[in-house]
Amino acid sequence: MLNFDFYNPTRIAFGKGKVAEIDKLVPAEARVLIVYGGSSAKKNGTLDEVKAALGGRYVEEFSGVEPNPTYETLIKAVAQIKANRLDYLLAVGGGSVIDGTKFVAAAVYAEGDPWEILLQRGANVKQAMPYGTVLTLPATGSEMNDGSVISRTETASGLHDKLYFTSEHVFPQFSVLDPTKTYTLPPRQLANGVVDAYTHIMEQYLTYPVEARVQDRFAEGLLQTLIEIGPKILQNPQDYDLQANFMWVATLALNGLIGSGVPSDWATHMIGHEITALHGLDHAQTLAIILPTMLSLRRDAKRAKLLQYAERVWHISEGTEDARIEAAIQNTRAFFESLSVPTRLSAYNISADAIPALLAQLESHGMVKLGEHQDVTLDKSREVLEASI
Amino acid sequence: MLNFDFYNPTRIAFGKGKVAEIDKLVPAEARVLIVYGGSSAKKNGTLDEVKAALGGRYVEEFSGVEPNPTYETLIKAVAQIKANRLDYLLAVGGGSVIDGTKFVAAAVYAEGDPWEILLQRGANVKQAMPYGTVLTLPATGSEMNDGSVISRTETASGLHDKLYFTSEHVFPQFSVLDPTKTYTLPPRQLANGVVDAYTHIMEQYLTYPVEARVQDRFAEGLLQTLIEIGPKILQNPQDYDLQANFMWVATLALNGLIGSGVPSDWATHMIGHEITALHGLDHAQTLAIILPTMLSLRRDAKRAKLLQYAERVWHISEGTEDARIEAAIQNTRAFFESLSVPTRLSAYNISADAIPALLAQLESHGMVKLGEHQDVTLDKSREVLEASI
Repeated sequence: MLNFDFYNPTRIAFGKGKVAEIDKLVPAEARVLIVYGGSSAKKNGTLDEVKAALGGRYVEEFSGVEPNPTYETLIKAVAQIKANRLDYLLAVGGGSVIDGTKFVAAAVYAEGDPWEILLQRGANVKQAMPYGTVLTLPATGSEMNDGSVISRTETASGLHDKLYFTSEHVFPQFSVLDPTKTYTLPPRQLANGVVDAYTHIMEQYLTYPVEARVQDRFAEGLLQTLIEIGPKILQNPQDYDLQANFMWVATLALNGLIGSGVPSDWATHMIGHEITALHGLDHAQTLAIILPTMLSLRRDAKRAKLLQYAERVWHISEGTEDARIEAAIQNTRAFFESLSVPTRLSAYNISADAIPALLAQLESHGMVKLGEHQDVTLDKSREVLEASI
Repeated sequence: MLNFDFYNPTRIAFGKGKVAEIDKLVPAEARVLIVYGGSSAKKNGTLDEVKAALGGRYVEEFSGVEPNPTYETLIKAVAQIKANRLDYLLAVGGGSVIDGTKFVAAAVYAEGDPWEILLQRGANVKQAMPYGTVLTLPATGSEMNDGSVISRTETASGLHDKLYFTSEHVFPQFSVLDPTKTYTLPPRQLANGVVDAYTHIMEQYLTYPVEARVQDRFAEGLLQTLIEIGPKILQNPQDYDLQANFMWVATLALNGLIGSGVPSDWATHMIGHEITALHGLDHAQTLAIILPTMLSLRRDAKRAKLLQYAERVWHISEGTEDARIEAAIQNTRAFFESLSVPTRLSAYNISADAIPALLAQLESHGMVKLGEHQDVTLDKSREVLEASI
């Protein structure tokens, strides 16, 4: 097992009716900015419920955070906070709204250009405004971690940037996880959430063995649970227990626990980010495209873990090692397809012509040595993209 | 899944060489009291290493915390803190030292009789002195939770008390988990640690199904890991990866995670505490005695989970349901015995004559309706004790 540090102070309030507990979780004298995305939080009543729970506190709203939250939008929230002396944020939404709120929380205290937070990957964040979240879309795990991914459409380089930062200062103080809030999600968002959580687990699990037995068992348990419930949840989005398990899996998939003491990959994510930045695909769609190809083309370096994955997650114990590995990768692809998330670039009308621009983006962002062995060079990324057509 | 709240702000510094990080983890101006047990922390060099890491800070020591830490001893540490204006505690040891430090941390601020903290189960704890821990014996999980068990030999009732309290104020600020610190543990303590962690998991897992798929998978993963490494670790106590996995399992077994959203039992622990209080057996010995009998006598109410346990943890899928349940319980007993922890009261020279006094203790402590269904009455506890001879 590798040495590690684990720290996660986010308080989780999980279950039906937990939104009401916001009244206890937010300081009584707080001046609150509720941050949310589009109209769904309004339509499904969650916004009203949150406001009711906040009681007599002074509350303002900031809406319009995009599915890939942009610097250009979020910086307006920073201005609103400063103008009206707000001091507590409440994110109501999915990973995009929460990621955006993290950036706002840090940017309020930024000295100089807030975009430096992204360029320095969070190293310059010295404090952040406290905030809580009400999760309405399980997927990214942002509700219980210190990471955030922000896009910028107008940058000095002329590129469309999608960059991440992390900082212990931006852990949510609390997150309300009420599985009933996901009942009205469209199937595409539910399916995306399953793919996103699945890939988060794989990025931390499917590398090479380091005798981290607990982390492996936990990761395998999360993957098995997603395989069990993924297709069912699309058929029965109002099944409480299915949604509860989905929500808790997605949170645990990226709260630091299963990634502690093990190597991690993240090459799939980095390439995926560039596809979203240039072509606007949903984050999860990019993962569904890249992950199976990535596993396939790096099967030698990932051999031991692929065999373990085949046996423990997919219960494949017959056939040669190569056949078992191939079957496990095919099962992964078929699982994503069974959720109606296509796993080929061509299904999204992206052809080989797009690859040079994607590689240029990777290069400009310094993504030239990715993966647990830092051996996913631009050449390897090209191979992966070519094989993903 | 049941509704739940999860909160755990303890920072974990895990791995070889992590003791040195204490210098970053303890405030620079802290006046520190190092709390430890007997001579082992001195002999194996951990105490010196800790003191070196504390650099120029003002440091005092308090030694002599017993394997079942007593009020009588700990209250002396409280006096030392007050007399010398100490403001930070550092527990160096196993669960007993850490549990004792939790009590000291809370008792420093107690209004009135500090024993009330135990009598009120921690409800009256309003603040506690900050502290960190350096774990030298994996077993209780105390290094990453907010619970503590304290004994008192002289009480108003004339009984020997062993009571617990919990309070969010007594989470450790940090815990250093260096697996090399366990290399010199005697086999009995290692074996006890495995049994203790195993039983912690079972108390939270082996109840009745509530569609908590993640928690079940995590618990099963922890149990499987203990089964894999338990016997090996006694043969190879200086195997880093075995000790690392043991340490991390024991911590995760009782840090609130696998118990979130599920019913829990704890009847085995409550009966076990009374056996320790009256007969001085090691905590884990009492668990090894009571758990198999408890499962056996409550197999109807625990039927569904026992079948799941048999299949997923012990890979028993052949035979009638009753036969599978019986085999799983027998495997559990055999596992404890394989660690040289006897599973019968008679092996410790305790006969049926001892049962009335144990039942009187349970009654005096209000332990008359135990278990996930609150149906472990004194009569049921008698049956369990009689069947454990």
